[in-house]
Amino acid sequence: MKIGFIGLGQMGHGMAANLIKAGHEVTLYNRSREKAVGLDAPIAATPGQAAAGKEMVFTMLANDAALEAVLHGPDGILAHLPQGGLHISCSTIAVATAEMLEKTHAKAGQRYLSAPVFGRPDAAAAAKLFIAAAGAKADIDAAQPLFDVIGQRSFVLSETPSHANLVKLSGNFLIVSVIEALGEALALVGKGGVDKAAYLELLTSTLFNAPVYKIYGQILLEQKFSPPGFAAPLGQKDIRLVLQAAEALNVPLPLASLLRDRFLTLMANGGEKLDWAAIGALAAKDSGQA
Amino acid sequence: MKIGFIGLGQMGHGMAANLIKAGHEVTLYNRSREKAVGLDAPIAATPGQAAAGKEMVFTMLANDAALEAVLHGPDGILAHLPQGGLHISCSTIAVATAEMLEKTHAKAGQRYLSAPVFGRPDAAAAAKLFIAAAGAKADIDAAQPLFDVIGQRSFVLSETPSHANLVKLSGNFLIVSVIEALGEALALVGKGGVDKAAYLELLTSTLFNAPVYKIYGQILLEQKFSPPGFAAPLGQKDIRLVLQAAEALNVPLPLASLLRDRFLTLMANGGEKLDWAAIGALAAKDSGQA
Amino acid sequence: MKIGFIGLGQMGHGMAANLIKAGHEVTLYNRSREKAVGLDAPIAATPGQAAAGKEMVFTMLANDAALEAVLHGPDGILAHLPQGGLHISCSTIAVATAEMLEKTHAKAGQRYLSAPVFGRPDAAAAAKLFIAAAGAKADIDAAQPLFDVIGQRSFVLSETPSHANLVKLSGNFLIVSVIEALGEALALVGKGGVDKAAYLELLTSTLFNAPVYKIYGQILLEQKFSPPGFAAPLGQKDIRLVLQAAEALNVPLPLASLLRDRFLTLMANGGEKLDWAAIGALAAKDSGQA
Amino acid sequence: MKIGFIGLGQMGHGMAANLIKAGHEVTLYNRSREKAVGLDAPIAATPGQAAAGKEMVFTMLANDAALEAVLHGPDGILAHLPQGGLHISCSTIAVATAEMLEKTHAKAGQRYLSAPVFGRPDAAAAAKLFIAAAGAKADIDAAQPLFDVIGQRSFVLSETPSHANLVKLSGNFLIVSVIEALGEALALVGKGGVDKAAYLELLTSTLFNAPVYKIYGQILLEQKFSPPGFAAPLGQKDIRLVLQAAEALNVPLPLASLLRDRFLTLMANGGEKLDWAAIGALAAKDSGQA
Repeated sequence: MKIGFIGLGQMGHGMAANLIKAGHEVTLYNRSREKAVGLDAPIAATPGQAAAGKEMVFTMLANDAALEAVLHGPDGILAHLPQGGLHISCSTIAVATAEMLEKTHAKAGQRYLSAPVFGRPDAAAAAKLFIAAAGAKADIDAAQPLFDVIGQRSFVLSETPSHANLVKLSGNFLIVSVIEALGEALALVGKGGVDKAAYLELLTSTLFNAPVYKIYGQILLEQKFSPPGFAAPLGQKDIRLVLQAAEALNVPLPLASLLRDRFLTLMANGGEKLDWAAIGALAAKDSGQA
Repeated sequence: MKIGFIGLGQMGHGMAANLIKAGHEVTLYNRSREKAVGLDAPIAATPGQAAAGKEMVFTMLANDAALEAVLHGPDGILAHLPQGGLHISCSTIAVATAEMLEKTHAKAGQRYLSAPVFGRPDAAAAAKLFIAAAGAKADIDAAQPLFDVIGQRSFVLSETPSHANLVKLSGNFLIVSVIEALGEALALVGKGGVDKAAYLELLTSTLFNAPVYKIYGQILLEQKFSPPGFAAPLGQKDIRLVLQAAEALNVPLPLASLLRDRFLTLMANGGEKLDWAAIGALAAKDSGQA
Repeated sequence: MKIGFIGLGQMGHGMAANLIKAGHEVTLYNRSREKAVGLDAPIAATPGQAAAGKEMVFTMLANDAALEAVLHGPDGILAHLPQGGLHISCSTIAVATAEMLEKTHAKAGQRYLSAPVFGRPDAAAAAKLFIAAAGAKADIDAAQPLFDVIGQRSFVLSETPSHANLVKLSGNFLIVSVIEALGEALALVGKGGVDKAAYLELLTSTLFNAPVYKIYGQILLEQKFSPPGFAAPLGQKDIRLVLQAAEALNVPLPLASLLRDRFLTLMANGGEKLDWAAIGALAAKDSGQA
Repeated sequence: MKIGFIGLGQMGHGMAANLIKAGHEVTLYNRSREKAVGLDAPIAATPGQAAAGKEMVFTMLANDAALEAVLHGPDGILAHLPQGGLHISCSTIAVATAEMLEKTHAKAGQRYLSAPVFGRPDAAAAAKLFIAAAGAKADIDAAQPLFDVIGQRSFVLSETPSHANLVKLSGNFLIVSVIEALGEALALVGKGGVDKAAYLELLTSTLFNAPVYKIYGQILLEQKFSPPGFAAPLGQKDIRLVLQAAEALNVPLPLASLLRDRFLTLMANGGEKLDWAAIGALAAKDSGQA
């Protein structure tokens, strides 16, 4: 299939590689061209060229602004994606942005799917992502073979694309909640003299036998926040988007508010370049531990 | 082995049954005698009689006060457990109480182990508990065959008994954190129009593929808080004990503080008889949903 | 002096009345013309006409969007205020908006002052406002005689206009903090059986002998939230702007986060039309009172 | 009048001095005798001797444990205060302790009043305290002349003594709320470049024109936390007692929970010897300032 793929960061690079490997005719675009290194596919000069003449165009960008930058304007996706072409947005973006995308593409005679993904860069490279998809049934059917190439499983949530974005954001909120809870628990048992590795072994062998506890427990145990697998400013953005969506719906989320404050504390104290798991070290710091 | 077993509530009943079934010579005690129904073992008239002449005595009680009530006095464990006898405390009690027990038994020439358990009543009945044990190596070795009878796995954490209690309390804190996080996430996606069952299916098939998310996700989805598997006042007690232990160690735990407030709100609004998972419904309530 | 006055809500009406009474030649503008009732001054058809040919133009609007609506476009202030004309913005707006205004007016050869005010509508009518002013010294000197007409006292804070907006927003944060603290204290002593009126009398006669405690203590005591003196959505907006300013500066404000959640709870439960003091009733509600 | 006065700390010393100066026949007691330096009155060897043969005995102690230590036992107040003698407790103690005192004294044929005070040591020395009194009318009438000697004003709250303690505790909660709110506001405007002294001048000249804002604003501005006027561990204790009273009544107080965590952070980071206002510096610290 003729596909455009826009956004070759840590996540997008692996996803694009898997699409290419599966034999699709992929045209790449990234703002800084050198990110395409190692991908055996043509590189477009503009987002519009990556979309022009394609059945589908994927976007996998760092935030809403980056997505809007490749969408609008004479060189953007909207101006070049063919009538009936399908934009599959995998980025973690605001619910309101997804609603805008749905309307804007419809007005332009194009189609739009939200398909944000769960997984860190290694999962993207290994085609082990989980995909949360929402949109018109026909569009999802069309995209399904590609989802199968980039992920280990996909979930169809709704016919309203932005629902998938709300799910993705709330999923990231749940992950950060785990980081905070583990950070507090480790601060407590650690200061109480308990061996933290044995503690995590117990947790993750029993009720908390899930990847998210294993991955973030290990990172917190080793305090290995650099280089980041998922950078703190991106996590901060996601909590901001969760709170924005919640504000639009009048849903108070006190735990999300706590997480927001944690990210601000981290940013104010040199955390810009760390993994988002570093907010899990703040409880120990507040308790006077290292 | 000759064993005393004190405390035949929802948890203790199943544990005692498994010890009896394994062929141990168990003497039971419970404040209200009728809780022993269905257990084929003699019932002592006092805690002291349940401990007298035994190699080991288990206690599985609802809280610190209940434990202290069977410990002290002329009819208590301390006065009757033989020299060298081993008290295995499985209750979820305060760290400070465990420290007191260790000292008090040592002074009386007796031995003490903390062995709190993870699991709900059905797991106790099915011998599927997880046991967090801490104490002298010889004592743990002696208790190990009994742990194997009541649980699916035991973890030796430390030679300091109270460490096991700190681990148990912090584990319960982590469970309540999951309830709160799920409660907020469901309030958000639910008010946003997402199908909550599909949402939970996605979460628990992917990063959150752990019993705790499946169990509490399902309870929250069905709003099935009665009858309680684990009653809210017991959960409230555990968060209180976590915060007490944290205060003794000067460890601020803002998430635990939030959970404390949630339990108070629940108690103030008729939640006394509900499952502790009912705090997970407060976020939806605050957001104006049913 | 020839003055334009734009925005005739509860606050602006009183301020404009005082400027007219002091003998200034005031041209009024409000989106809905009928708000000018009772003011003896000409009404312009557009914001631009209210600014055209004036030495100064005041704006006193409900939010940033309303201010931007009268600023831009062919009928806006920017297009009509004379070269060297002074825009005095009294609205409670975002720090970022004030920074934009400073730059935009400078580019247009105009001058800009931030002069947000403290006080409720009755204080505006009685010329009892407090004015927090920031901007170039010459501009403040020019505006001072008018400040003296609308307020009881003005404070010059800085030569950077947006500093006054940050001060105003943080002042409103402090007021809402008082509402929350009083709300929690009243929930506690009230449920404990203490006479709440006697309690407030004690507080406001001693350490808390300040208008803010008297005003909001009385409102909370009487639960008199309607009609609103200052509507809850405006208070919610101010906390949002405080948190935005704090986020831009990487300053975590956990108390402000709590207040944000309170406003969301209020909005989700029918508080749209109430006074912002109504968030102070939520603590009692959570405790099962009323 | 013949009076006993027990507890000669920073507060009690000034109160006792004023009672002596007014001509009362005061017998003093303090655990460490040297605290009585500068007071022209006999010093008893035990609390009981200070109470024996007196119409009234005041207690002004640091916490509940200190009060219980002078109350019970063969040398305690209970054993020696005459039948009909009146115990006036001015300490900041738990609501539950006051309830116990009321019952215990009644059983012993003695009378009991709660009369906690508001004010720092300089106010105690200057007889400028505010007194929150609760108890039987006859007892308050009897104590009134002495209240007039130690304070500038007294408030009669209720016939239930413990109500005065609840009021005192909630009053201290309000003070700490002011410290926290000011701390957050100063962190915000300070990082935003506003002159903090000018900011406080504005606040305390207008809506926040109350002693509590002036006193704590100045302390926070100067970061002058040592020597303490009121030590942080005492403030921590008061918030603990507020939360205990609130828990007994099922009243969630999220702001008090935040303050509890602030005190823990302070204690974990060397704040043991500082003024309680030092929690107001934590917001600035979290934001990366100093």
